[in-house]
Amino acid sequence: MIKIIEKIDELRKTLKEYRKNNKTIGFVPTMGYLHEGHASLIKRSSNENDITVVSIFVNPIQFGPNEDLDKYPRDLERDKKVAVENGANIIFHPKVSEMYPEKLYTFVNVENLDKELCGAKREGHFQGVATVVTKLFNIVNPDRAYFGKKDAQQLAIIKKMVKDLNFDIEIIGCEIVREEDGLAKSSRNSYLNQEEREAATILKKTLDKIREMIDNKETNVKKIIDMAVENIEKEPLAKIDYVEIVDLYTLEKVEEIKNDILVAMAVYIGKTRLIDNFDYKFN
Amino acid sequence: MIKIIEKIDELRKTLKEYRKNNKTIGFVPTMGYLHEGHASLIKRSSNENDITVVSIFVNPIQFGPNEDLDKYPRDLERDKKVAVENGANIIFHPKVSEMYPEKLYTFVNVENLDKELCGAKREGHFQGVATVVTKLFNIVNPDRAYFGKKDAQQLAIIKKMVKDLNFDIEIIGCEIVREEDGLAKSSRNSYLNQEEREAATILKKTLDKIREMIDNKETNVKKIIDMAVENIEKEPLAKIDYVEIVDLYTLEKVEEIKNDILVAMAVYIGKTRLIDNFDYKFN
Repeated sequence: MIKIIEKIDELRKTLKEYRKNNKTIGFVPTMGYLHEGHASLIKRSSNENDITVVSIFVNPIQFGPNEDLDKYPRDLERDKKVAVENGANIIFHPKVSEMYPEKLYTFVNVENLDKELCGAKREGHFQGVATVVTKLFNIVNPDRAYFGKKDAQQLAIIKKMVKDLNFDIEIIGCEIVREEDGLAKSSRNSYLNQEEREAATILKKTLDKIREMIDNKETNVKKIIDMAVENIEKEPLAKIDYVEIVDLYTLEKVEEIKNDILVAMAVYIGKTRLIDNFDYKFN
Repeated sequence: MIKIIEKIDELRKTLKEYRKNNKTIGFVPTMGYLHEGHASLIKRSSNENDITVVSIFVNPIQFGPNEDLDKYPRDLERDKKVAVENGANIIFHPKVSEMYPEKLYTFVNVENLDKELCGAKREGHFQGVATVVTKLFNIVNPDRAYFGKKDAQQLAIIKKMVKDLNFDIEIIGCEIVREEDGLAKSSRNSYLNQEEREAATILKKTLDKIREMIDNKETNVKKIIDMAVENIEKEPLAKIDYVEIVDLYTLEKVEEIKNDILVAMAVYIGKTRLIDNFDYKFN
């Protein structure tokens, strides 16, 4: 039986009881509308911990004024099913007023890592993410927390934040889960009509071409990006937000590929902004 | 026997053992050079908790470029004595490289509350405080943490941060401890020569006059501040940094006294900047 908990105090009390009995706690923070990407995080957490907490909270402070907060998809009943099937024990599903009961003045900023990639366009987004994750970490106090590699910048930022602020939590990045045709699973895929859905494969197809170039010893980032841009622009429904190659850890732009890198892109398919990436390690 | 611990991992391990045995943990964060103000915090913590941890760490990121980081007084042997005498069990005394092993990118900001009073002149100071206190809270994970009311703005900021970020820690503000002639105890008092030491009583004397005016139903802040400035300026060694009356909780300036307020001042005596304050509550 899965417990749905809405109140912070009740969650703390429940988890303290588990902790007293030496149970380890795994945590999967989500905004709900769970897909197989989330399912893989939940499954891994329940394999590695006695108790798995899944939070479902569409966090207003990580959405910009022109972003899709209101239309962000929600389906608690289905989420419950996905959570149960993959071994979660508790769903934490707080209301906005429970998480933000009064005007918030305190923000956590992870400087530099929030500049490139999605950070360049989504001002305040990663501040909102770092702040809510700090709050959730303080509420859940887990041993391990699981994040998807699909949000590669988010993962890098959370890892740096945990180091810098001495959270006693192991951060585990999990592989991207894809549809059969390669499209990375995302709650936002539900926005796509059939034509857009087909066009959306351009992200993974282009990433595969980039990987091939790097496998073939191409190290000139400009050449690679030019190829990628050209390839994406062949798809009429696609509009590039960014295609970048950055250092895997600092997320700083690189001109030549010699150390571990992250290849990341954000592309609008119609009105829907999709992201995808892969990391390429040399050791 | 008091334990002196320099390493984060060792402290965590030690405290986990206590926590497993249901011991409560009180925490007194300090920059060392402990005086009777700190002693009162340590004593209160050891009265209210099974285990008291005192941290001694002169935190570089809360000092501005022109501030007294290098000459900040240090005396671990005396600190040890004060801590033991007042019931502390553990001194956490990390090196700077232990607290900041790599370039720090993550900062905690408590907006608005850091604007007035000391925040106006000491840019970045409260960001440095909020960030290091977050780190220390994550390392020590105490049930209660003790702060002096002498640093009234710091106390207000930490309280707001704990609420906003959901730290499961009770923040306890403790009364200002004073010398016989009224001067608030401070590590920085050690900088004063004898003449300055006498001049330094002007802070508390002026606060007493302000309190008298408010007791006598004066509500006009400008009148009160004018009196205070005039009074301090009679002291040739004194140079006002600020004298302000602000809302006790939001720290916003008020023009008329009707709700709970904080009366706060910072005054240079020679080259030494001293602060003092009192809060005035109506309920």
